[in-house]
Amino acid sequence: MIYEQNINYCLAKSIGSGGLDSSELSYLLEKLDPEFERLKKSYLSDNLPILTLPEVDDLSELSHIATVWRKKFDKVIILGAGGSSLGGKTLCALNQDEYGTAPGAPRIYFFENVDPFGFDRAMSSLDLSRTSLIVISKSGNTAETLVQLLCCISAWRAAGFKDLSESFLAICGPGNNILRRICLRENIQILDHDPLIGGRYSVLSKVGMLPALIAGLDCTKLRRGASEILNPILQGAKPSEFGPAIGAAISVGLSRNNGISQSVMMPYIDRLMVFSKWYRQLWAESLGKKGLGTTPIDALGVVDQHSQLQLYLDGPRDKMFTILMLDQKGVGMQIDPSPADAVELNYVVGRTMGDLINAEQRATAQTLIDSGLPTRIISFKELDEKTLGGLLMFFMLETILAASLLRIDPFDQPAVARGKLLTQRYLADFELL
Amino acid sequence: MIYEQNINYCLAKSIGSGGLDSSELSYLLEKLDPEFERLKKSYLSDNLPILTLPEVDDLSELSHIATVWRKKFDKVIILGAGGSSLGGKTLCALNQDEYGTAPGAPRIYFFENVDPFGFDRAMSSLDLSRTSLIVISKSGNTAETLVQLLCCISAWRAAGFKDLSESFLAICGPGNNILRRICLRENIQILDHDPLIGGRYSVLSKVGMLPALIAGLDCTKLRRGASEILNPILQGAKPSEFGPAIGAAISVGLSRNNGISQSVMMPYIDRLMVFSKWYRQLWAESLGKKGLGTTPIDALGVVDQHSQLQLYLDGPRDKMFTILMLDQKGVGMQIDPSPADAVELNYVVGRTMGDLINAEQRATAQTLIDSGLPTRIISFKELDEKTLGGLLMFFMLETILAASLLRIDPFDQPAVARGKLLTQRYLADFELL
Repeated sequence: MIYEQNINYCLAKSIGSGGLDSSELSYLLEKLDPEFERLKKSYLSDNLPILTLPEVDDLSELSHIATVWRKKFDKVIILGAGGSSLGGKTLCALNQDEYGTAPGAPRIYFFENVDPFGFDRAMSSLDLSRTSLIVISKSGNTAETLVQLLCCISAWRAAGFKDLSESFLAICGPGNNILRRICLRENIQILDHDPLIGGRYSVLSKVGMLPALIAGLDCTKLRRGASEILNPILQGAKPSEFGPAIGAAISVGLSRNNGISQSVMMPYIDRLMVFSKWYRQLWAESLGKKGLGTTPIDALGVVDQHSQLQLYLDGPRDKMFTILMLDQKGVGMQIDPSPADAVELNYVVGRTMGDLINAEQRATAQTLIDSGLPTRIISFKELDEKTLGGLLMFFMLETILAASLLRIDPFDQPAVARGKLLTQRYLADFELL
Repeated sequence: MIYEQNINYCLAKSIGSGGLDSSELSYLLEKLDPEFERLKKSYLSDNLPILTLPEVDDLSELSHIATVWRKKFDKVIILGAGGSSLGGKTLCALNQDEYGTAPGAPRIYFFENVDPFGFDRAMSSLDLSRTSLIVISKSGNTAETLVQLLCCISAWRAAGFKDLSESFLAICGPGNNILRRICLRENIQILDHDPLIGGRYSVLSKVGMLPALIAGLDCTKLRRGASEILNPILQGAKPSEFGPAIGAAISVGLSRNNGISQSVMMPYIDRLMVFSKWYRQLWAESLGKKGLGTTPIDALGVVDQHSQLQLYLDGPRDKMFTILMLDQKGVGMQIDPSPADAVELNYVVGRTMGDLINAEQRATAQTLIDSGLPTRIISFKELDEKTLGGLLMFFMLETILAASLLRIDPFDQPAVARGKLLTQRYLADFELL
């Protein structure tokens, strides 16, 4: 078992009026029966690629590129926005942070913004002869990503590099799009982005796998973790036995019946901080339609105990909480109390830093529960590729199932087109600015 | 003028039923009259130190420490949680990012979590002979900060350093607290944290100033920017003429009358990303009491256009937006369209990256407004220390004034004590875990 999900403290029988009635939960779970049938059929007919992605045979080709790049380059830039960035970034966070990378791995930077100050500082800090670049855009027409690429091409040219085919690579959808035309002209290798996979569901595709392989992750294990979460659906499990379905029903039920408008995702571990950002896009873009959906909020324990907990406990009762707990008992430095010599610190004598964070995550969950706030606990024994792959699949399925209950299409994002058009108009007609 | 605040698009007369009635705005602003009198009196009697902080004469002492440290050290670790970290981190973000620091400045790391994995990786990446440490806790009893410190002392000791007085420094409140006792015993210099200044209001005190000076910021300009925002209150301005009062009345009014439960802070510039996190604590901890307050949400343009905008535009209409716009027209690399050769990209021909982000921020604001969502625009011509100091004071005053309208104490955080007690109990009685 990759994880355990405990939803008891989201129910009225445990926490009182802030919780969901068990009968409502059962009702919603039953409504998911036909969706389970649809998912099984989609898997068999292969028309919903995120279900079959864990089994795609593309890792050897990608590994080959990754192996070469790991030798040739110290830094890798990933250009992309939203779904083209957050999946890979989430995976890479398992093997790199601001203090270092896993042995042998280049440092991977994700350029997500078009802030000229940050861009200039980044470019001037890099030795371009030891830096490579992956540009990702499913549509191939994302303005910010194209502008980033044009500026990077200029920077490489200005530094004297004529042949970009050695150090640039693109992932984009097929057909006639701008990114593809630029790459063909510049002799940049292109990998095809499956047009049936939306950006925010692309983490297990090459969009996430290539950065992860460069960062040194075991992508077979990642996908195995994802498979393990999905399998019960394919093997005929009922919604009431399936974690992501239970989570979806709890979320939708609490939103509909208990005034819950916000969903706080709070892992207790630095390596999952970007995971919360990935979840934030997944949930927001998939469900925020027709006035429906709840607002996902990313938090990090123990940091946000010192920033947000006051609001969570004593502000409006409009949030549900998902605490992601890693068991770290006994892990890390032992706390040497001798410099402290303080009676008040007796409780940490001989403990480790892992003991402390272990106690903190449980104390926070208990405090939320004692206040009658709906709190789901997802706990796991270790955080490796398998766990992370499982968590990613868990929340993709939960999101798709929640959309089914809301009768919403989880794969489109109709409302953002207007902003893109306006940006173009403002740029084109500069006098209006 | 440091900034311009435009609140027209928060009002019903501009955006329809999602906006606040002008009469309600006037009513709330009038209710702030007595609070303005109180603030003036507090300033004159010096019993609310954040008002007089911009004039405190402590920068020369702090500059002396900073000058020595900038020469002796390549890295500086700051230990602290919440208010002990977010202020300094917000300031330092003006002069450092993941790609580098301002010339001559050490890299400053903020250790906020007690995740053993991250802590170990950080410690093993550092050359301790070139690394110094500032530990900050107002109470002097924050468990996580004390454990971080004990582990750092062990690490320095293990690396052969006997005398910590050269490279460690503490900021903590007066009186008999654990941190002070450790420092006295270890011969670590202590600077006093003013007991009247709460953590989340401490950014302009030495808690923020010392890291900022080490990072190379002009702290006189920072405080001058703060003064400039505060001055109109001291000079007898009315609430209806005062930006932070108008902002407070809009927020409280929209929450009370228009179902707004969330406040999205969205700067369009990387250097203000941490500012949004600082705001998040300030607003959440100050107002999230007695079932009141709204949930602050940090977002970053253009990144979150590709992650959250779908929800903002088409999900529940429960958010107000504050867009922080920096004018970057003409700034940054010019976009060379020759590799593109795409008719569809004609609109960026000859533009700069700054032009693009300029158009994006305005396009997003316009899109929100066109959807009838309450949108406040705060714009400024440049982002330097003066602007940042002004923004910090603006939002501290807005928060205090909003608390006044809600009849809440903006300076306490009564609900978090229980979680702290539980953590201790869990650690003390480990069998229960």
